Amino acid sequence: MTAHRIGIVGYGNLGRGVELAVSLQEDMELVGVFTRRDPATVTTVHEYTPVRAIDELESMTGEIDVLVLCGGSKSDLPEQTPQLAARFTVVDSFDTHARIPEHFAAVDAAAREAGTTALISTGWDPGLFSINRLFGESILASGETYTFWGRGLSQGHSDAVRRVDGVAAAVQYTIPSEDAIARVRAGEQPELSTREKHVRECYVVLEEGADADAVREAIVTMPHYFEPYDTTVHFLTAEELARDHQGMPHGGFVIRSGESSPGTTQTIEYRLQEESNPEFTASVLVAYARAAARLAAAGEHGARTPFDVAPGLLSPKSPEQLRAELL
Amino acid sequence: MTAHRIGIVGYGNLGRGVELAVSLQEDMELVGVFTRRDPATVTTVHEYTPVRAIDELESMTGEIDVLVLCGGSKSDLPEQTPQLAARFTVVDSFDTHARIPEHFAAVDAAAREAGTTALISTGWDPGLFSINRLFGESILASGETYTFWGRGLSQGHSDAVRRVDGVAAAVQYTIPSEDAIARVRAGEQPELSTREKHVRECYVVLEEGADADAVREAIVTMPHYFEPYDTTVHFLTAEELARDHQGMPHGGFVIRSGESSPGTTQTIEYRLQEESNPEFTASVLVAYARAAARLAAAGEHGARTPFDVAPGLLSPKSPEQLRAELL
Repeated sequence: MTAHRIGIVGYGNLGRGVELAVSLQEDMELVGVFTRRDPATVTTVHEYTPVRAIDELESMTGEIDVLVLCGGSKSDLPEQTPQLAARFTVVDSFDTHARIPEHFAAVDAAAREAGTTALISTGWDPGLFSINRLFGESILASGETYTFWGRGLSQGHSDAVRRVDGVAAAVQYTIPSEDAIARVRAGEQPELSTREKHVRECYVVLEEGADADAVREAIVTMPHYFEPYDTTVHFLTAEELARDHQGMPHGGFVIRSGESSPGTTQTIEYRLQEESNPEFTASVLVAYARAAARLAAAGEHGARTPFDVAPGLLSPKSPEQLRAELL
Repeated sequence: MTAHRIGIVGYGNLGRGVELAVSLQEDMELVGVFTRRDPATVTTVHEYTPVRAIDELESMTGEIDVLVLCGGSKSDLPEQTPQLAARFTVVDSFDTHARIPEHFAAVDAAAREAGTTALISTGWDPGLFSINRLFGESILASGETYTFWGRGLSQGHSDAVRRVDGVAAAVQYTIPSEDAIARVRAGEQPELSTREKHVRECYVVLEEGADADAVREAIVTMPHYFEPYDTTVHFLTAEELARDHQGMPHGGFVIRSGESSPGTTQTIEYRLQEESNPEFTASVLVAYARAAARLAAAGEHGARTPFDVAPGLLSPKSPEQLRAELL
């Protein structure tokens, strides 16, 4: 088995997850973490992981098979993915849905000119959820597709709660509405807005002397953020918050409900429960890094998305093994 | 949009399902049903569907893009798929897991020699479930994969119940154990045998004068079939059986439970709820027929399985549309 030589660009929660995920893949070795920070200030999970300045990549084209890009979608990836695709085969998890076409075009041009392969938007949404939306509507041509997000930590909504007078600390979870899911699973094909599909749950540490009822009222009536939703507020101590709410869980459901003939309902449901969103996203990125290496080796140059990747390319097993063991 | 011209070979429950599924796909037209029976004796769902003798296929190579093979895996497909792949692009739902490698080899040889494309084992298990087993272990390299079947009608077990003295009519459903699913979802990664993962439910119409308790006892203690399982027996009238148990439901779960780092559990769950197993399987076959036509047009000849098919090939939408709308 040839080992795929992987480089990580950017070392936040996602880069850390990629370091962990690569260590679980038997056919991969980690060449190093490449950072814009001073490498001496970066502490990796494994002591043996080399940390280098991003500029060192310039001289390493022959030493790395795939770069896993772990920057943010807002400003890092729109620059980095085309730039690095000009010299390396790359994967990213670009997740600004509305800007995927322009990101694809920029990356495709760079990768085609360089003769590299660039696999973009390979996390779970976009990524695995997208694949399941596609399978759902392709198989059950007559029907509706529903995406529910959560139970997941929402950074923007957590910040909104923290700005309420009397709140010392807080986190907010977005949770799929059980009632909405039950209706979809039952084949009702209801029309549901985002707010009907989700409820919100807040865990709040009060400042000393703050009035719990007033805080609760300020939260649940906050326009846009909470007022349109069914919102629950729990109060807890700073110790409890630190103990029970430090994870970054996320996940959700993609459900396709359709009829194969009048009155015959068919339901396809895909569900993710992630105890750590960045570690899960990283695990997906790393499986797609394997696919990217294979596409590059097969001369498939240019930008690709998860829609273009045959499932078998994600597995370390041979096609014969896959047919015998998993089909 | 070019219409894919589809032929159906064999017209039982599955062929009927394919006829229905093709009618829901805007980019497909049905050339006809091809049968070994006297065409005059075959009644299709739609009056306008042409029914022809299977021998007529010989002269129709240029008129059909893809043949959807709807025979059984025991004796029909091992002969028909290689035979027809010698002249047509074909898809089948060959589902004898243990014999997939030899079926693949026979079909591959025929298709390569003829310059056709043959997509085998494209139902839901093998098929969609297989893809999810592959995704699960590729993404969460450290973990366990669980397949649960049901709630589904089991023909063999229904027959076994019908042979019990005092039983006039019966059906049996295999049902995933809720307890087992809960343990897997909780990240326990339990070791579970097939019998621990499933319970059995029987719906029995008694013969006149039969002793319900004796019948129940005979069923739940039946070696191999029911004794090892948690089995429930319900008695009902012939009218209730006819009214409530004529469907052919099936489905199940594929769950991958893994750890991305010590103590951090990630769960991927795929679930199918089919009110009609043959209609659902047919819907999958038809989506893969589209992929087969595209692979054939691209010169990808030989046998393929769902592991070799990029998701985008299943959709009538263009790659640009898919990236903009579904990614």
